Amino acid sequence: MTRARRIMKKCGKVDAVVISNGTSPYLDPLFWYVSEQTSGTFEGSLAIISKDGSLDIITGTLEETTARKGLGNVHIYETRDERSQILMDLLAGCGRIGVSAPRTSYGVSEHLKKLTGAELADVTENISGVTAVKDRKEIAEIRKACSVSSKTASRIPDMIRGGITEKKMAWLIDSEMRANGGDGNAFDTITAFGPNSAEPHHSPTEYKIKKGDAALCDFGSKYGMYCSDLTRTVFFGEPDDVLGRAYEVVLKAKEAGMNEMCDGVPAKNADAAARNVIDGSEFKGRFIHSFGHGLGMNIHESPSASVRSEDILRKGMVVSAEPGIYIPGIGGVRIEDTVLITKNGAEALTEFDESYTVI
Amino acid sequence: MTRARRIMKKCGKVDAVVISNGTSPYLDPLFWYVSEQTSGTFEGSLAIISKDGSLDIITGTLEETTARKGLGNVHIYETRDERSQILMDLLAGCGRIGVSAPRTSYGVSEHLKKLTGAELADVTENISGVTAVKDRKEIAEIRKACSVSSKTASRIPDMIRGGITEKKMAWLIDSEMRANGGDGNAFDTITAFGPNSAEPHHSPTEYKIKKGDAALCDFGSKYGMYCSDLTRTVFFGEPDDVLGRAYEVVLKAKEAGMNEMCDGVPAKNADAAARNVIDGSEFKGRFIHSFGHGLGMNIHESPSASVRSEDILRKGMVVSAEPGIYIPGIGGVRIEDTVLITKNGAEALTEFDESYTVI
Repeated sequence: MTRARRIMKKCGKVDAVVISNGTSPYLDPLFWYVSEQTSGTFEGSLAIISKDGSLDIITGTLEETTARKGLGNVHIYETRDERSQILMDLLAGCGRIGVSAPRTSYGVSEHLKKLTGAELADVTENISGVTAVKDRKEIAEIRKACSVSSKTASRIPDMIRGGITEKKMAWLIDSEMRANGGDGNAFDTITAFGPNSAEPHHSPTEYKIKKGDAALCDFGSKYGMYCSDLTRTVFFGEPDDVLGRAYEVVLKAKEAGMNEMCDGVPAKNADAAARNVIDGSEFKGRFIHSFGHGLGMNIHESPSASVRSEDILRKGMVVSAEPGIYIPGIGGVRIEDTVLITKNGAEALTEFDESYTVI
Repeated sequence: MTRARRIMKKCGKVDAVVISNGTSPYLDPLFWYVSEQTSGTFEGSLAIISKDGSLDIITGTLEETTARKGLGNVHIYETRDERSQILMDLLAGCGRIGVSAPRTSYGVSEHLKKLTGAELADVTENISGVTAVKDRKEIAEIRKACSVSSKTASRIPDMIRGGITEKKMAWLIDSEMRANGGDGNAFDTITAFGPNSAEPHHSPTEYKIKKGDAALCDFGSKYGMYCSDLTRTVFFGEPDDVLGRAYEVVLKAKEAGMNEMCDGVPAKNADAAARNVIDGSEFKGRFIHSFGHGLGMNIHESPSASVRSEDILRKGMVVSAEPGIYIPGIGGVRIEDTVLITKNGAEALTEFDESYTVI
């Protein structure tokens, strides 16, 4: 069954599903997922799945050659009016159109309503129900993306030299990922030294590493259209004792969380188990984000392994496992694997030396 | 005057402007623009500009430390309900809320309407009226981003060796940009060899360069939060004569377009002048995209230098100048500069050897 057909089947009571791209970076990976495209930018393009599961692609002359390499009936427009006309023809008679509310712009939603008179239905969760469980081909690509990141993680201790800046370190990691066969960054690499590592989403600066600093490195490679995600924290010289203790707690929290990950189990159980370890230690309240998130063509996607998640883990889902402890003014520790949910548990797709490492 | 205040002044008849981030990559650079942040991911965060020009930032605990380094009153939420409550308090009494229709999700738009009862107004063009004209600090960053790309472009002939793949070439370009002081890619580098160069938005593959191939390289660096954009096309051994002729026509088209670029002039004049050159040659109809687009924190932003654009160029705008000719099955040629609009004309911020180059 095509991916488009599987999505329509899951969406049920809609007459069509409309996937729309805005201007970069407002591009929906679902467009590439259903068309099985591996190229193109496709700004302003749309993919329409009809009730019978057939797929139509609406794009401009700029991407015509690329579009014809993918799945779907390709319709080419030159002007906005032509695009509207194609859209109207394809959606004629539709009373209820499914869209993803977070990935469809307010502008497109208003345009669709005006053009067709149809009501819109948010089918985000129906779509996630299909895309969160990866097929064999997707898992193979994610494994390769993870292998690239794992090899890179093992080189981190060799990359760090006295005085290296966060920016330089990020560049070394990015270069190493490409040297290891990656197709580019899955997201902007985070390298956070010393007190900066207490900010989970710190962006690299000209800060130079000092003796006793934590060096938190969070990065992922793309392989084809797929992502990996990994965090390794090492120390440049013996750090404040508190960071050494935090490291051991984070490692235990990751193990506790991963032990809960299995087909059929609520995703929030992993978060609860990891949080329990951290909140039962001297670091109560210092784990200020979720345990994990799904990843695939998107670096953040369904399911969510957070406190309030209602998602159930399923065999074939790929999820990050990334507890952390953050101590303002001193530093932070995060350890992260990308994990594949299996029938009986969870398989780490990333692999690196997780032991407390002082360089 | 703060950027937030300038935006509110331009938006006129709204009681507040709401800037919202979704999940990566659905993140609005405007959030960073108004908060003058240079860090953080800020998924699900919002920035609110009130009638008096004051700025409020709504974000989760994860980004609190980072948020407090930027402008605006910071409000922290732990749950979705808390976020809604903060939003409701800040927007109390607003009858008309300005949003950017292409950058606000359908989900957020519905949420805002439900929470506040207000009507939404699309203020995209009002906002662009502020952001399209860059201030001195922004132009300085863009100049640096352009300098990184220019240095990289000059190294292209040295990078190409027999048998190099498009993917390897993209990696060499990305590494060179970082070595030249760039902060990462402004967009995924396009390297297109031989027939692949006939696709304007081709993504790099394992295709190995052959004698006579065009090598089209379209790339840009970030410097801080700002982008550059440059395309250089060279040839690996003497190509088909038709590509040599196309090169000369594209170069003339770029000059013709850039000669029309000046403060106060319609942006479409540049497109018309360049298109005139190409359509007056044997390559009529082969220029299948627009002449240029604005860039800044976004790689594609206002103004548009396209056939149907109604934008007027203003001093301080930064725009790409990038005509191309694409011949299916044979190859393509594109030459692109990033250009600063000045009082009396246009200054190329990128610089490289544009002469017909056979390696």
